[in-house]
Amino acid sequence: MSGEKKEYPKEHIDLYQQIKWNGWGDTRKFLHQLKPSGTIAMTTPEVSSVPLPSLRGFIKKELTLPGEEDKPFVLDETPALQIENIHVDPPKQYPEFVRELKAFFLPDQLKDDKLARITHTFGKSLRDLIRVRIGQVKNAPDLIVLPHSHEEVERLVQLAHKYNVVIIPMGGGSNIVGAIEPVSNERFTVSIDMRRMNKVLWVDRREMTACIQVGIMGPELEKQLHKQGVSLGHDPDSFEFSTLGGWLATCSSGHQSDKYGDIEDMAVSFRTVTPTGTLELRNGARSGAGINYKHIILGSEGTLGIITEAVMKVHAVPQAVEYYGFLFPTFAHAVSALQQIRSSEVIPTMIRVYDPEETQLSFAWKPSKGAVSEFTSAMVKKYLHYIRSFDFKNVCLSIIGFEGPKKVVDFHRTSVFDILSKNAAFGLGSAPGKTWAEKRYDLPYIRDFLLDHNMWVDVAETTVSYANLQTLWKDAKQTFVKHFKDQGIPAWICAHISHTYTNGVCLYFIFASKQNENKDMAQYIEAKKLMTDIIFKYGGSLSHHHGVGYEHVPWMTRYATRGWINVYRSLKETIDPKDICNPRKLIPTIKEENNKEPFLFDVVNVKYPKL
Amino acid sequence: MSGEKKEYPKEHIDLYQQIKWNGWGDTRKFLHQLKPSGTIAMTTPEVSSVPLPSLRGFIKKELTLPGEEDKPFVLDETPALQIENIHVDPPKQYPEFVRELKAFFLPDQLKDDKLARITHTFGKSLRDLIRVRIGQVKNAPDLIVLPHSHEEVERLVQLAHKYNVVIIPMGGGSNIVGAIEPVSNERFTVSIDMRRMNKVLWVDRREMTACIQVGIMGPELEKQLHKQGVSLGHDPDSFEFSTLGGWLATCSSGHQSDKYGDIEDMAVSFRTVTPTGTLELRNGARSGAGINYKHIILGSEGTLGIITEAVMKVHAVPQAVEYYGFLFPTFAHAVSALQQIRSSEVIPTMIRVYDPEETQLSFAWKPSKGAVSEFTSAMVKKYLHYIRSFDFKNVCLSIIGFEGPKKVVDFHRTSVFDILSKNAAFGLGSAPGKTWAEKRYDLPYIRDFLLDHNMWVDVAETTVSYANLQTLWKDAKQTFVKHFKDQGIPAWICAHISHTYTNGVCLYFIFASKQNENKDMAQYIEAKKLMTDIIFKYGGSLSHHHGVGYEHVPWMTRYATRGWINVYRSLKETIDPKDICNPRKLIPTIKEENNKEPFLFDVVNVKYPKL
Repeated sequence: MSGEKKEYPKEHIDLYQQIKWNGWGDTRKFLHQLKPSGTIAMTTPEVSSVPLPSLRGFIKKELTLPGEEDKPFVLDETPALQIENIHVDPPKQYPEFVRELKAFFLPDQLKDDKLARITHTFGKSLRDLIRVRIGQVKNAPDLIVLPHSHEEVERLVQLAHKYNVVIIPMGGGSNIVGAIEPVSNERFTVSIDMRRMNKVLWVDRREMTACIQVGIMGPELEKQLHKQGVSLGHDPDSFEFSTLGGWLATCSSGHQSDKYGDIEDMAVSFRTVTPTGTLELRNGARSGAGINYKHIILGSEGTLGIITEAVMKVHAVPQAVEYYGFLFPTFAHAVSALQQIRSSEVIPTMIRVYDPEETQLSFAWKPSKGAVSEFTSAMVKKYLHYIRSFDFKNVCLSIIGFEGPKKVVDFHRTSVFDILSKNAAFGLGSAPGKTWAEKRYDLPYIRDFLLDHNMWVDVAETTVSYANLQTLWKDAKQTFVKHFKDQGIPAWICAHISHTYTNGVCLYFIFASKQNENKDMAQYIEAKKLMTDIIFKYGGSLSHHHGVGYEHVPWMTRYATRGWINVYRSLKETIDPKDICNPRKLIPTIKEENNKEPFLFDVVNVKYPKL
Repeated sequence: MSGEKKEYPKEHIDLYQQIKWNGWGDTRKFLHQLKPSGTIAMTTPEVSSVPLPSLRGFIKKELTLPGEEDKPFVLDETPALQIENIHVDPPKQYPEFVRELKAFFLPDQLKDDKLARITHTFGKSLRDLIRVRIGQVKNAPDLIVLPHSHEEVERLVQLAHKYNVVIIPMGGGSNIVGAIEPVSNERFTVSIDMRRMNKVLWVDRREMTACIQVGIMGPELEKQLHKQGVSLGHDPDSFEFSTLGGWLATCSSGHQSDKYGDIEDMAVSFRTVTPTGTLELRNGARSGAGINYKHIILGSEGTLGIITEAVMKVHAVPQAVEYYGFLFPTFAHAVSALQQIRSSEVIPTMIRVYDPEETQLSFAWKPSKGAVSEFTSAMVKKYLHYIRSFDFKNVCLSIIGFEGPKKVVDFHRTSVFDILSKNAAFGLGSAPGKTWAEKRYDLPYIRDFLLDHNMWVDVAETTVSYANLQTLWKDAKQTFVKHFKDQGIPAWICAHISHTYTNGVCLYFIFASKQNENKDMAQYIEAKKLMTDIIFKYGGSLSHHHGVGYEHVPWMTRYATRGWINVYRSLKETIDPKDICNPRKLIPTIKEENNKEPFLFDVVNVKYPKL
């Protein structure tokens, strides 16, 4: 067993070895500075060093305190530790368990090298990255198992149950809520990396369903489905680095959920391997014979068992795919248009609305020559300013998409464009839509660059009613910036609307500041508490699609309410009596609640929120 | 306390007193024979004795054995017992419990007279009607309580838990699966009649939601919502005699579910009073923070608690409402058109397809002069036969509806009509649609008439895949008719498609025969087993929207699978540790499963299905 990538023939390179162990995404894709200008550029597997000439200036502008604008803008270097310099305790030994495992798994399916263990300790939350960058790797799993089939997962879970071994399923590892970290190291812990279970088992074009091994990642899933003329249409920000199983376990939602639904709408049935047996669901259309048990597993985040295979609804690869950009004079105009679109009953496949700050970030992200350059051109600006009376500082970019049969798309486009024009939206054509589609997975890469340069960025998202949408948006932004500026730390926050419903939207915040002097977790915790408290103040959900994991647990007693906490605990006790399945996630333990076990916020020396 | 209707001032007449205690629906609406012709006619609160001149001939034709066609057709009289002649054991006494109850409830909210107790013993299944018609009233509840508020339900459930009193929620009492009957009489049993909790508490036109007391019945609900310009759009066959709470507890589905969704899609949140406390859900759009607990209550059929108030999605009262009739040359043509419509992504509000036998019944149901008469006219028949080569015996009537903003309806109509015409459908215009809308709640009234005349009719419905739809349809019909004809009993069966999904449809069978010599339950049980076995053979669900109740329990171990049975039992134990909530419904008890407690089919002396 070895984690040295170069020793493997190509077919044995596991996906976890191709994803940054201490940052976001593809190891071959990152932001960096060009010398000597300091211009920020992006390198991808396809193209090296594409300059983003406005980005440095944007960061300077937004993360400089008043009065300091004229000082030279220096990007301090705060590099992460190299893996050689990180200490990880050796794995615990459990010879009886491992001996039985080896009877069923090939040597190549069991890993306990340093790279494997580090990559299976963390997700991609800011807290995860801060820890791994400073080498704070506690509780690494003792063994990584890479199963190939449902039957292997069954065998593994049976053995884990027999030997009281903790099991944590790992999909793409892209979660940002501490969903897969081993919280303690009392018991032997196995991370089950599902990513070799990556086959579409069958496609049924009559029922428009597909049976899929859930370890498959987004691009591979769509590739296999497209070969048969169908698509799942689930496209979260993490698409490139997350798996179907992760989407199911965490109640994921994709960019096009307004048309294709959230993951629970797509899931017909699935198999869940639990310590007390495999739970099967009926494959078929809607039934009304009792409780729909699928919803007990959806959102259970690996705490009740491991999903292995799922039958999902699919749809024909759309005949027409059209994405357009629009500018609204203000956020209020955009919200008003959005509500009118919803009540027209002609709903686009996607409506994204960026607030003015995120709109400016979009403009700043553009490459030197690119499809988007047109819409920031002096001419458009002038036109908007003089003819349409737009104040460019308040302008909101919106990307609106239509997918489906050509005649359906035509009808939807006509209907929606009519509402947009009545709400003062200025059409930018399809170029911004094309740019959005091409660049939609790029933004997370900025986080590693900022962490490398004495800054940080994090996100918070919620579902909020239309009534509270704009007040939450304003209050959160003001409160966040004030909180950090009061400490003399420049801070920046923006937001966008990413998913819409009849009774609310997903509002997604992105916020950044300079790091504090200690480069510690305090700012992360402050921001987390501050944003969550404001979200709760306006009746927002604890999460729209990021899930709970470990980082949101302190709020769950208040959020899920007492009665349901008890129901969950009883489910857990029945299905997983030894608490081997991803323990201490989702709902606080009784010990945590009674202050007899350290809770997330204790660990980082910040008092946890009142429950 | 008295059940004599005439003694009550109008405001005190409870809804249960206005619904037949031993049959379907409104006491003032029924089928009967006109003298001396024997023509079957319908009397309603609005119109007396409207003749249905073809119906008698239709019944004669379908329920006469070959060779007996020329014999005179006599409708034997097999009347039900009058209430005076039915014995009901006196209610059990529980003075401590009732004394505490009386501290919180008005005398008028507590009933234990004979009418009240009989009407709260049964639903409207054929088994229920057979029993009540012959006076077999075992296990009548000891007390009926009619709460006015959530708080009163909380008080009642707390007391019931304290005193180990069985509580069974009663909505409209329209279920046909034994959902509300007290299965044993060991414990003091209260039927909680929810129908005084009938207010829309608020409507939020921005989020398009309404908070509603769940005891409200369909017509009153829509009336209150319409006043505020909105509609729920949930319209099951039982609409006139069922409640929102019943719909939620049993996973109901309405005629227009293709557009407005099934009840679980409409339900945002609700309050459930359980013996261990009230379970609250978050009001708001979709959240991804853990398990969506609402699905544990939906479909739990009163076995976990009593739903009291619900926030439901509503929509604007549609600007355009258009329903049309079509004739397809064969059932296969209709199914093919339906699948093409589904894959076109332009889905009507409703698609109902009647098979040839049900189409003939529709024709036979027409009043002497009515809107539908046109489409059976000689001219249309001739046209279809000579010009379109339709064999009238195979013709399938379809009702297709569109609701929504005018321009959406226009687009949908154009798109759907195009597919229909490519599939040889013959348009009948809007008259059949209008007739369907007007008469859609009438058919169940035929059952009482048939039972009064030595016949019976029952129904079975399922969700089945497109792949198995036509084979199930054919096999079920052939098997059913053969089964009874082999015994020398004429039998008739028809079916329609009532709800459509991307991966299947709801197929709904109606079947009838003459009664056997003993007028006993044997035929019901035979038909139930036969139909359920065939449905399972083709992978159909145990029910699409009728639910489980008591009558489907024997199949649930096989249907829900072992693992989920255990999960349900653990939920039940946690939420309702004394098993006071609607016991012995939904999932068999461990005692039943181990043959230590009589099971449904034992009671009627028919071996229950192999589990």
